[in-house]
Amino acid sequence: MSSPSQHAFQAPTGTRDFYPAELARVRYVQDAWRRVSLRHGFDEIDGPTFEHLELYTVKSGEGIVSELFSFQRFSGEKTYALRPEFTPTLARLYAAKANSLARPTKWFWQQTCFRAERPQRGRLREFLQWNADILGDDSPRADAELIACCADLLRELGLTPEKVKIRISHRGAVESLLLNKGVERETLPKWFPLLDRAGKLSNDDFIAEAGKLGMPPPIAVELLRAMALSTPFENPTTELMLSEQAGGRGPEYFRALFAELKAAGVADWCVLNLGIVRGLAYYTGMVFEVHEASGKERAIAGGGRYDTLIELFGGPLTPAVGFGMGDVVLSLVLQDNSLFPADAEIAKRLGTRPDVFVISNGTDAADGAVAPLLAALRHAGFHARRSYKATKNVGKLLKDATTAGLGGVGARFVVIVESGAAATVKNLESGHQHPEPIPLNQLVGYLRS
Amino acid sequence: MSSPSQHAFQAPTGTRDFYPAELARVRYVQDAWRRVSLRHGFDEIDGPTFEHLELYTVKSGEGIVSELFSFQRFSGEKTYALRPEFTPTLARLYAAKANSLARPTKWFWQQTCFRAERPQRGRLREFLQWNADILGDDSPRADAELIACCADLLRELGLTPEKVKIRISHRGAVESLLLNKGVERETLPKWFPLLDRAGKLSNDDFIAEAGKLGMPPPIAVELLRAMALSTPFENPTTELMLSEQAGGRGPEYFRALFAELKAAGVADWCVLNLGIVRGLAYYTGMVFEVHEASGKERAIAGGGRYDTLIELFGGPLTPAVGFGMGDVVLSLVLQDNSLFPADAEIAKRLGTRPDVFVISNGTDAADGAVAPLLAALRHAGFHARRSYKATKNVGKLLKDATTAGLGGVGARFVVIVESGAAATVKNLESGHQHPEPIPLNQLVGYLRS
Repeated sequence: MSSPSQHAFQAPTGTRDFYPAELARVRYVQDAWRRVSLRHGFDEIDGPTFEHLELYTVKSGEGIVSELFSFQRFSGEKTYALRPEFTPTLARLYAAKANSLARPTKWFWQQTCFRAERPQRGRLREFLQWNADILGDDSPRADAELIACCADLLRELGLTPEKVKIRISHRGAVESLLLNKGVERETLPKWFPLLDRAGKLSNDDFIAEAGKLGMPPPIAVELLRAMALSTPFENPTTELMLSEQAGGRGPEYFRALFAELKAAGVADWCVLNLGIVRGLAYYTGMVFEVHEASGKERAIAGGGRYDTLIELFGGPLTPAVGFGMGDVVLSLVLQDNSLFPADAEIAKRLGTRPDVFVISNGTDAADGAVAPLLAALRHAGFHARRSYKATKNVGKLLKDATTAGLGGVGARFVVIVESGAAATVKNLESGHQHPEPIPLNQLVGYLRS
Repeated sequence: MSSPSQHAFQAPTGTRDFYPAELARVRYVQDAWRRVSLRHGFDEIDGPTFEHLELYTVKSGEGIVSELFSFQRFSGEKTYALRPEFTPTLARLYAAKANSLARPTKWFWQQTCFRAERPQRGRLREFLQWNADILGDDSPRADAELIACCADLLRELGLTPEKVKIRISHRGAVESLLLNKGVERETLPKWFPLLDRAGKLSNDDFIAEAGKLGMPPPIAVELLRAMALSTPFENPTTELMLSEQAGGRGPEYFRALFAELKAAGVADWCVLNLGIVRGLAYYTGMVFEVHEASGKERAIAGGGRYDTLIELFGGPLTPAVGFGMGDVVLSLVLQDNSLFPADAEIAKRLGTRPDVFVISNGTDAADGAVAPLLAALRHAGFHARRSYKATKNVGKLLKDATTAGLGGVGARFVVIVESGAAATVKNLESGHQHPEPIPLNQLVGYLRS
């Protein structure tokens, strides 16, 4: 064994260690992701943690390579990359079985992703991601159904339409807006990356960049204004804005989408914002991002329609719409808004609270009965813990029972073994103590009732 | 976008794609891992998917590098490796906070691991692993407590002591056995890897390899016999065997361990087998492996005591005992024994069965009421699905309700929207249909009761 150097004892830059309390907060978020996905009728899928590098360059071009953790087993072998996102794997899975899958197919996924970028607030090199996708349905209803699932997650975690907004746009509407401002159709592919970065640029820098693409400063200012405008769908100016700027192409879609969002009960979360374009090249229609209303943190989630991607991966032409949500920004937003329950409350909600804490009254007969009793309780499905302390001070041990588990949540019951045959049982929630000791072989039945 | 080549559309060698039914079987196993860990009082932790390469070479030597997926971000930067196992990360986490952690600390973990080996039956390049560890307790009771948790998982999944055996050994007892056979103490480190491979060698090959280490063939045959012997702990020959061969060192420990295994109700799963040595260099005491009684598949699980590892990672000297169980061999054993429930049954147990399937009677008013009703049901926490078919044939739609969800499990209730105001509700489990339509705004309350 070689002598260890210091860095071996720290997590790699941009990754996280999770002790029980920290992991419980992650599980709290993941549990909500799963619960909301299921109740909206999505089925869970999964794939490899790493894929052939080409799976990512096919979709995103060679430019993505610098953002990936890639590796070979030996020189000349195929190159792999840790997944930066799940959508290419999903497209591969769908394309391989497209003919036997239901229409629509609704899939969700939640695992880790990896980006080789500089860690900063809201961005890590390893993070958890939740995806939900609807494949085989090109209707505005499917778009609204997906957005409703996203909104339900936000509500599930205690967020409200006042704190968080779902900003919705459409690639076609943004194209029309640009064409309307005199942009040549051939230069559109250069405009989307600029628009996607606009929020991070000063107005002057944006105007300068737009100038390089041939747009006069006064028009660039108009464009900036149009992009900054967030309007509720029911606002009369919305349709007017779309009619004028999208040349009659946008309003019909947005009118239908809004009706579906209203029917799904989530219209109050949603605003129209043509500043949302999403950087990824594969979006073909509606796009959206979820932001804090204050604009404080990065985007909480983002997604949209990608009707050509399944075909690119060898499947039939298949309409598709989906979104991804990472755990890092979401957790910051929940912290900003004091929406994480206390650790003890999380233990209750996740079902990790101990059911029973077993202590001995200190006699040899009772000591000897603890292990078989624990075995019987666990066999019956109870989460049973014991004291490991050498003390025979029952008062101290009782205190351990009331603080056992995550965040000191305490066990639901304490069982004090009084002999080889019977135990005193107290309900720590109600304070009720059963009047006489209960025979050990009847304890499981007693606790079940 | 470059033109895709064929290999981009397949999972990398030795990794798996999981469509919903396949993933549900994995979740069924993971759910049992989690449930059993919790009820035995283990808290969950997690760490990065990749670590600094040195974290693994410190523990296992440079020899492990060829079995790792390792990578650098750019030339000269630190080298990372995908985790081949979790124990080094656990040791790093424990060492960093040893002084503030409870004694004992009981941790479990379940995620993916990666080995760059040739895929074969029972071995993949990416697999799921469950670990449970008890740190800070050097007693045979802790060893038994750990083994009891492992046995409870086997029982939870329907395995029995007739089908599966926990083969227990001890590094010290094996050392004594070897010294007793004339092995020089200095050569012991060369013997453990050979003993670990013994099951994969023919007797002749083992005798030849032992000869290279200086052991005469008749003694090697005796050694093989001793290693092949699996005896129940209560068998009188067991103590005799240990007394003779372990020079009086083994029996006391095994006597204490057996008493604890009996108290924990798992003695019938356990046999003594000095052929178990575990290849990893860091074990210091008791070691065990779980095998099918038939010996058909590879080891289902393995672990043991590693009392010096925490110190090696910069922590205080800390007794520790743990085991790991992968999903691949376990799943093969469950299949061999027909112990996987049907997909529909798995859906029920995992709670992924749809609660409600909503269909419309085909009128415009009913069609328009479906989306708001779905939203209300999901908001109330129900797993609600709908029909996406264009048909107005209620009979066909009812059939979809009875086969919705994984494995055609079917929804618990079907709701047929009759108008904008009311719906017929039928319990698909009992066949009971509520006599008159229920107002839509009372449906959530009705389904809750």
